[in-house]
Amino acid sequence: MNILLTLAYDGTNYCGWQKQKNGVSVQSVLEAALYSVFGAYTPTVGASRTDSGVHAMSQKVSFVVENSKIPAANLPKVINSKLPNDISVRDAELVAGGFNPRFRAVSKTYVYRILNDTYPNPLLRNYTWHVPRGLDAGLMAQAGGYFVGTRDFAAFAAAGNSHKTTVRTIYSLDITKEDTIISITVRGNAFLYNMIRIMAGTLAAVGVGKIPPERIPEIIVSGDREKAGQTAPPQGLTLLDITY
Amino acid sequence: MNILLTLAYDGTNYCGWQKQKNGVSVQSVLEAALYSVFGAYTPTVGASRTDSGVHAMSQKVSFVVENSKIPAANLPKVINSKLPNDISVRDAELVAGGFNPRFRAVSKTYVYRILNDTYPNPLLRNYTWHVPRGLDAGLMAQAGGYFVGTRDFAAFAAAGNSHKTTVRTIYSLDITKEDTIISITVRGNAFLYNMIRIMAGTLAAVGVGKIPPERIPEIIVSGDREKAGQTAPPQGLTLLDITY
Repeated sequence: MNILLTLAYDGTNYCGWQKQKNGVSVQSVLEAALYSVFGAYTPTVGASRTDSGVHAMSQKVSFVVENSKIPAANLPKVINSKLPNDISVRDAELVAGGFNPRFRAVSKTYVYRILNDTYPNPLLRNYTWHVPRGLDAGLMAQAGGYFVGTRDFAAFAAAGNSHKTTVRTIYSLDITKEDTIISITVRGNAFLYNMIRIMAGTLAAVGVGKIPPERIPEIIVSGDREKAGQTAPPQGLTLLDITY
Repeated sequence: MNILLTLAYDGTNYCGWQKQKNGVSVQSVLEAALYSVFGAYTPTVGASRTDSGVHAMSQKVSFVVENSKIPAANLPKVINSKLPNDISVRDAELVAGGFNPRFRAVSKTYVYRILNDTYPNPLLRNYTWHVPRGLDAGLMAQAGGYFVGTRDFAAFAAAGNSHKTTVRTIYSLDITKEDTIISITVRGNAFLYNMIRIMAGTLAAVGVGKIPPERIPEIIVSGDREKAGQTAPPQGLTLLDITY
């Protein structure tokens, strides 16, 4: 049986989704839980390689299990009983054999949250980027519009990324402001390494008036990482949704 | 000079506001920071004795400092530089000598948040009470209305509380539902020990149909803690505001 899980996690205490030699990853903790549930090593494939400190409300994870007597509908409860409380399975469904959650994804939606307030907020410290300087959300929204479409996003990829192509399609980018929280919600077919965090850092530079919105197209065309803004810190980023 | 701070904190890692022999309190960490800033032991008085795991967006804290050269407006930044990132000063103002933030409070507002969803949400685990059973927010709002007014809330005080009187005034109690979060926002002149958490536990019992809303008045009149619901866990509670 091929199972697809919907997984939520607080990335604060993990080295990211993917297993690594040093540090505890979400994947390693999930696979340990699957080992206790199924009594056998159960390798998993995740749809998104979220970084250390990045959160997920809806990571998609597939694995194969032979002869399980547990109906898929009961799997979330059973697996959750073996997981720490910063990781939670929210759904489990049967999918066709060979289903790959990474390559079959049609769109992924992330939100990047900025706390735009004079002083830090302890309750949001692990879930927002604190930017004390005033941000103009209108300018940011104007700049954000230039990202939408199929573009070569080489200028928005971390140095040393090993993607075959740096062309990606962004379907939508919305900026909303509620009290002191500015949320950048981005939906795209896929993203380069650190792409959303570099976009968030660039939009913050627009928000403080350092980069005029109309310079975004030339930064994209330049393909030059140096022309874009800083890489915003990981804790502001949450994987919201993946569609197939 | 008498200073009044507005303090926000994530109560997850603390034994509560108040100093205790065992465990690290918010007050002890704040006083350690004030010691580094002013070079002298600076005892503080807090307006609310929040419990272990309870959060604050606007705790009020007063202290006296002699001959400080730091203008009040600069104090938040200076004190924050000595605080861990789960505690943050959000305002500092000069107040009259002898001002006591606890006894001078005119009203306090708390919010109690319930996550009413099948599965837990790792991102909200420290800030909500997870109740998987469906809650009827309409019934809860109806029940909540009976708490408003000046009443003897003995039935809603933890056993062994040492209050002189158990009469308190609740000015308002609002129940709102947004997606899977039910928020109980309560404003009152003061609260008994565990009072809001017992009210939240009772309202949840109403929400699942265990207690009919119209039984709330007789529970209040009974003065019997056994008739009210459970004490809801601390992490759902946040001190929102205190007025003078």
